[in-house]
Amino acid sequence: MPPTLTGRGLGPGKLTRLHRMLYCHGAGDGTALLLPYDHGLEHGPRDFAAQPESGDPGFVFELALAGGFNAVVVQIGHARKCYEPFAGRISLVVKLNGKTEIPSDDAPLSPLNASVAEAVSLGADAVGYTLYVGSARQTDDFNALRTVREDCERFGMPLIVWAYPRGSAIERAGGRNSFYAIDYAARAAAELGADIVKLNWPTDPPSDAVPPEYRHEFSDADQLAALTRSAGRTLLLLSGGERADADVLLNRAQAVVNAGGLGLIFGRNFLKREPSEALALAGKLHHILSDPIIGHAG
Amino acid sequence: MPPTLTGRGLGPGKLTRLHRMLYCHGAGDGTALLLPYDHGLEHGPRDFAAQPESGDPGFVFELALAGGFNAVVVQIGHARKCYEPFAGRISLVVKLNGKTEIPSDDAPLSPLNASVAEAVSLGADAVGYTLYVGSARQTDDFNALRTVREDCERFGMPLIVWAYPRGSAIERAGGRNSFYAIDYAARAAAELGADIVKLNWPTDPPSDAVPPEYRHEFSDADQLAALTRSAGRTLLLLSGGERADADVLLNRAQAVVNAGGLGLIFGRNFLKREPSEALALAGKLHHILSDPIIGHAG
Amino acid sequence: MPPTLTGRGLGPGKLTRLHRMLYCHGAGDGTALLLPYDHGLEHGPRDFAAQPESGDPGFVFELALAGGFNAVVVQIGHARKCYEPFAGRISLVVKLNGKTEIPSDDAPLSPLNASVAEAVSLGADAVGYTLYVGSARQTDDFNALRTVREDCERFGMPLIVWAYPRGSAIERAGGRNSFYAIDYAARAAAELGADIVKLNWPTDPPSDAVPPEYRHEFSDADQLAALTRSAGRTLLLLSGGERADADVLLNRAQAVVNAGGLGLIFGRNFLKREPSEALALAGKLHHILSDPIIGHAG
Amino acid sequence: MPPTLTGRGLGPGKLTRLHRMLYCHGAGDGTALLLPYDHGLEHGPRDFAAQPESGDPGFVFELALAGGFNAVVVQIGHARKCYEPFAGRISLVVKLNGKTEIPSDDAPLSPLNASVAEAVSLGADAVGYTLYVGSARQTDDFNALRTVREDCERFGMPLIVWAYPRGSAIERAGGRNSFYAIDYAARAAAELGADIVKLNWPTDPPSDAVPPEYRHEFSDADQLAALTRSAGRTLLLLSGGERADADVLLNRAQAVVNAGGLGLIFGRNFLKREPSEALALAGKLHHILSDPIIGHAG
Amino acid sequence: MPPTLTGRGLGPGKLTRLHRMLYCHGAGDGTALLLPYDHGLEHGPRDFAAQPESGDPGFVFELALAGGFNAVVVQIGHARKCYEPFAGRISLVVKLNGKTEIPSDDAPLSPLNASVAEAVSLGADAVGYTLYVGSARQTDDFNALRTVREDCERFGMPLIVWAYPRGSAIERAGGRNSFYAIDYAARAAAELGADIVKLNWPTDPPSDAVPPEYRHEFSDADQLAALTRSAGRTLLLLSGGERADADVLLNRAQAVVNAGGLGLIFGRNFLKREPSEALALAGKLHHILSDPIIGHAG
Repeated sequence: MPPTLTGRGLGPGKLTRLHRMLYCHGAGDGTALLLPYDHGLEHGPRDFAAQPESGDPGFVFELALAGGFNAVVVQIGHARKCYEPFAGRISLVVKLNGKTEIPSDDAPLSPLNASVAEAVSLGADAVGYTLYVGSARQTDDFNALRTVREDCERFGMPLIVWAYPRGSAIERAGGRNSFYAIDYAARAAAELGADIVKLNWPTDPPSDAVPPEYRHEFSDADQLAALTRSAGRTLLLLSGGERADADVLLNRAQAVVNAGGLGLIFGRNFLKREPSEALALAGKLHHILSDPIIGHAG
Repeated sequence: MPPTLTGRGLGPGKLTRLHRMLYCHGAGDGTALLLPYDHGLEHGPRDFAAQPESGDPGFVFELALAGGFNAVVVQIGHARKCYEPFAGRISLVVKLNGKTEIPSDDAPLSPLNASVAEAVSLGADAVGYTLYVGSARQTDDFNALRTVREDCERFGMPLIVWAYPRGSAIERAGGRNSFYAIDYAARAAAELGADIVKLNWPTDPPSDAVPPEYRHEFSDADQLAALTRSAGRTLLLLSGGERADADVLLNRAQAVVNAGGLGLIFGRNFLKREPSEALALAGKLHHILSDPIIGHAG
Repeated sequence: MPPTLTGRGLGPGKLTRLHRMLYCHGAGDGTALLLPYDHGLEHGPRDFAAQPESGDPGFVFELALAGGFNAVVVQIGHARKCYEPFAGRISLVVKLNGKTEIPSDDAPLSPLNASVAEAVSLGADAVGYTLYVGSARQTDDFNALRTVREDCERFGMPLIVWAYPRGSAIERAGGRNSFYAIDYAARAAAELGADIVKLNWPTDPPSDAVPPEYRHEFSDADQLAALTRSAGRTLLLLSGGERADADVLLNRAQAVVNAGGLGLIFGRNFLKREPSEALALAGKLHHILSDPIIGHAG
Repeated sequence: MPPTLTGRGLGPGKLTRLHRMLYCHGAGDGTALLLPYDHGLEHGPRDFAAQPESGDPGFVFELALAGGFNAVVVQIGHARKCYEPFAGRISLVVKLNGKTEIPSDDAPLSPLNASVAEAVSLGADAVGYTLYVGSARQTDDFNALRTVREDCERFGMPLIVWAYPRGSAIERAGGRNSFYAIDYAARAAAELGADIVKLNWPTDPPSDAVPPEYRHEFSDADQLAALTRSAGRTLLLLSGGERADADVLLNRAQAVVNAGGLGLIFGRNFLKREPSEALALAGKLHHILSDPIIGHAG
Repeated sequence: MPPTLTGRGLGPGKLTRLHRMLYCHGAGDGTALLLPYDHGLEHGPRDFAAQPESGDPGFVFELALAGGFNAVVVQIGHARKCYEPFAGRISLVVKLNGKTEIPSDDAPLSPLNASVAEAVSLGADAVGYTLYVGSARQTDDFNALRTVREDCERFGMPLIVWAYPRGSAIERAGGRNSFYAIDYAARAAAELGADIVKLNWPTDPPSDAVPPEYRHEFSDADQLAALTRSAGRTLLLLSGGERADADVLLNRAQAVVNAGGLGLIFGRNFLKREPSEALALAGKLHHILSDPIIGHAG
């Protein structure tokens, strides 16, 4: 059973939009499967080389519909120019900030490219903000997040925070994919007011560089439970990350469901597959999300 | 007897809110015991490892009520999402700025994550601002404090300044925990218009790195008296700092009371204890605060 | 046949202005031939040494009319002081940002020198913005682009983005003129909301410094097809770049047309030629643009 | 006879306030003796070690009244919290900016901690702004001064500029206390629109590091005459600087009066003395200020 | 015959003010002789050492009247405090930005010290802005110029841009006084929208550091013709620069007139001379300006 939306300080506007995304689209049972589609900005068109038609937003939106995704997540350019034929048929999430990967990532910051008001005007059901937890430019990052969050309160727009440990300091402290880093990111997003937090799966093994509390092995279940606890009233989305084997992905999906997460956000693992294979994977993910018997995927 | 609230340039709005916090909650006799709860952002969830349930705001708020605290101090995310069931039963202090500990602390600055207006809208009785006294980024810090202070005047909202000596310059000049550094921080907060200043207990011994006036031993009583004098019309809260023995904490509490301080702010020393032990400690602190016979705890 | 203007999220204001530029000026058949004329700011008057009269805006505007260009692209000073006698006879594109080439180009940023509102007041049919894709100052660049784009939405003003890979990071990653860099720039402009993107012709051979997907030879046709795909619903303008032989230019023009591009933007290749030679070149370009039989120029 | 207030571009608001400060308080004859009291922020409480009660604003304000000072100069915190009992009995000057001395002084900038409007609301008769002439951050400094000056014009509030040569460049060019540096500071304040400029007494001997025009000995009288000339229509206040012998101070006071200066501003030389000694010194200063026979103190 | 004011995109407000400056003051025949007087801020009072009374704005304004200057150019402090007795008798140009020469000049930027609106309120007939063409801080510089220019359009206030090549990059590229640098500066000012551009006389010989187009000797006449061409519809003022022999100055003045420049701006060459000598020089300059027979001064 997906997590309830009540008791999380969401007012009527946010509840209306989240309800639409979670109960009127996708599986329609309150679970979430989102398709992020801003790789062209974040990584360049090279991400579309494996499946060239994945460079075409129209093709991708159709695929998202066919795969039963609740929403597509795009930058403002694609929201403005490509969403219209899909309006009302799948939720739109406008990713408000984004950057290229070309300059140094030592002190990353993701510039705001659109406003919450513009997302409202396009009929979006949520907005996204990438927070680089641990970056030396956290002042600018937190300030930008604050303006977005305040506008979200004003417009009743759900706020999804992509909470990414990033920057040279976290690389020295165990790396961006350590459980320590991702657990910290989950909490930071929660305390800063995210309605939903999007996390990457922790893949780095524990090292001496992380604080003592994190210097031993944790099971996937323990890690997911801790992330859920750190996120508190903030709903949890886990990503698939770089292209991985289907078994790995399904096991992770099951772990997310078991821990009480809201759902999954799969981009490259969907779009880099051949379409029929991608749709088959989406079907299995829905099966796990909507029928969460513990150990189901095992 | 706790310090009087009059003659400190507080208008009716600030007096109303402070009165509510000090006389309607906690011991209700004008003394202050506050529970700060933003370690998840400042240090990460590792601070909850000793007592995992302390990661849950609902659990912590209940514990604060049980321990007779006047107020909980949280970041905006927890204020928005978790305070509602406790509204009117314990005062809310919204900590307006905060940061992670991941990036370098050489020139720290704590970004604003919420506004005074938002704190007003949530029914808060005070706001908190962390000022890194001595940081190379003091221009940005003072500018942000100024905007907060002006809004506090406008809304009649009491302003608690966490005055922390911090940054590479103060580390070279005797360290953040020297009496010199903390005394300077108290004065800076007062001249910049704090209604209440939160200080750490001075723990570093005098060294040749501090100015001549501070290069000898001071008794706890002398130090507290000096801090009170430096704070002037600004009320004084002392913190417990990192987890310490109960005896040490009680002696410090007594010294604060003897010097005319407003009260105490205990976070990790409360939350890292087993709950029954924590409540027992809170009881002893109340005893000292509300019955301030000099030498009581000695 | 030139690309259609519909299905690209352009509202009535943008369509009106683009229609005027593409169907009321130049060849008048929907193809585009634009004359950029801000070399004086970008490179200094040295660009006019070959043809000194090209330093005179009046002379250049007359030449643009004679050559059947759809629009001239100038900085605000020339728009304010020199366009009046040509108002209504050729479209005006105000280049909103621009800089000198004197300071280091390691982390370039092009300052805004005018607003969309001012371009509206001068009767402009589009505005231009130079985005230095990959510059370390991308935060400032994206922020400025965002304000311009939002004003363009507000005023119904078409936005042409000069998408230039630039800065020390891209020089280390294969160079500003690599197909990789220009393909990334096309996509970035599209995702950030450009209505039209102006690209340079990719001239650098593939190297080991670019991502694996780009480390082999591509034909001109393949490159242009990829750029068109990356640009998506954003219309494509290709430039002539530095002065080149007429044959090279005509071949490139044909490739642009074949790939479905909107048109060409030729500055130095026009203005550094003797006027009669320049007009003859313009005539050949029109021939290719308006009669796009594949292989026509070959 | 003190300098006249007319012919200096002061409108009715500034004249009203200056008249109140100069003719309704202190000696009441148009001469000025001001008590600056922000050492606690600028240097820390160590400045109060010699006379601990000087750490108490109430004590200091009483002493200023007893000493016949025209005004006290304090930061906003003390203005808000401590001035009320003295309102109408001595003029208030709100020092709008200020900083701690802890971070590096290589490129100093003094952050704004309050606004002119707030000074108006507290009944102040002037505001103060510290300008670090020669700092590498002069752009930020001049920008902040400009906003203050514009508000002063808007509210009719006299603007006193503390013009301090400061930063690594001036230290290399002869030092902050050279006649060259202070003469430049006087002129800069005048051209930037100060109504009154506060200067330190030039104490550094001429060196080869200063421009040729300043590489010889000047008498005190010559220096003061030059400073007055450089200040032009801007009134001149000279400070006592660090604690010095009374004879030295009285000679300087006489030189200021002889040169047509408005008066004196004495802080540490007053507050670091035993109160009866301080009051005796104040009496002698008034004698010099109000009976300016040339050579009087000699 | 002085250049006409029409056909330059100046609306009625700018024309009214320029007409007043050029036809109601000075020679009254449309030629321009301006007296800049902000050396006290830019260089310090040392510039007044040769003629100490030149430190007094009142003296200087009288001298400007006597010498038949059209306008004095001063910073806001002198405009506010010293212009009133001369209002209506000589035009006022408020120099809106300015700085001291103390900090490093590697990446110069001149801070704004006043607004166009304030200049309007003081009856100014033009405003001045110093643009450091080629400085690494060109983004801040262009942004500030843009706000000034937009206000000038709004208020009908003529904008004079002091276009100075400056900063470490231009020093490496042939120096600030090379013909290349000054020609570039003229064009940049024109494209950025200056109504009048003030240039220094090119004095550096050609070197291998400048672009090829500038690596040979040019006659004064050729250089002035090129500068006029680069400035386009922007009117040209040439300065006298540092104190030089009268013959040199008169030859330069003649060259400016021959090239169609608007006039001259002479500060130090006027103020560092003994007053009678200065007035004699001014007389000769007027003779050249108003009776421009080519070769007149030769």
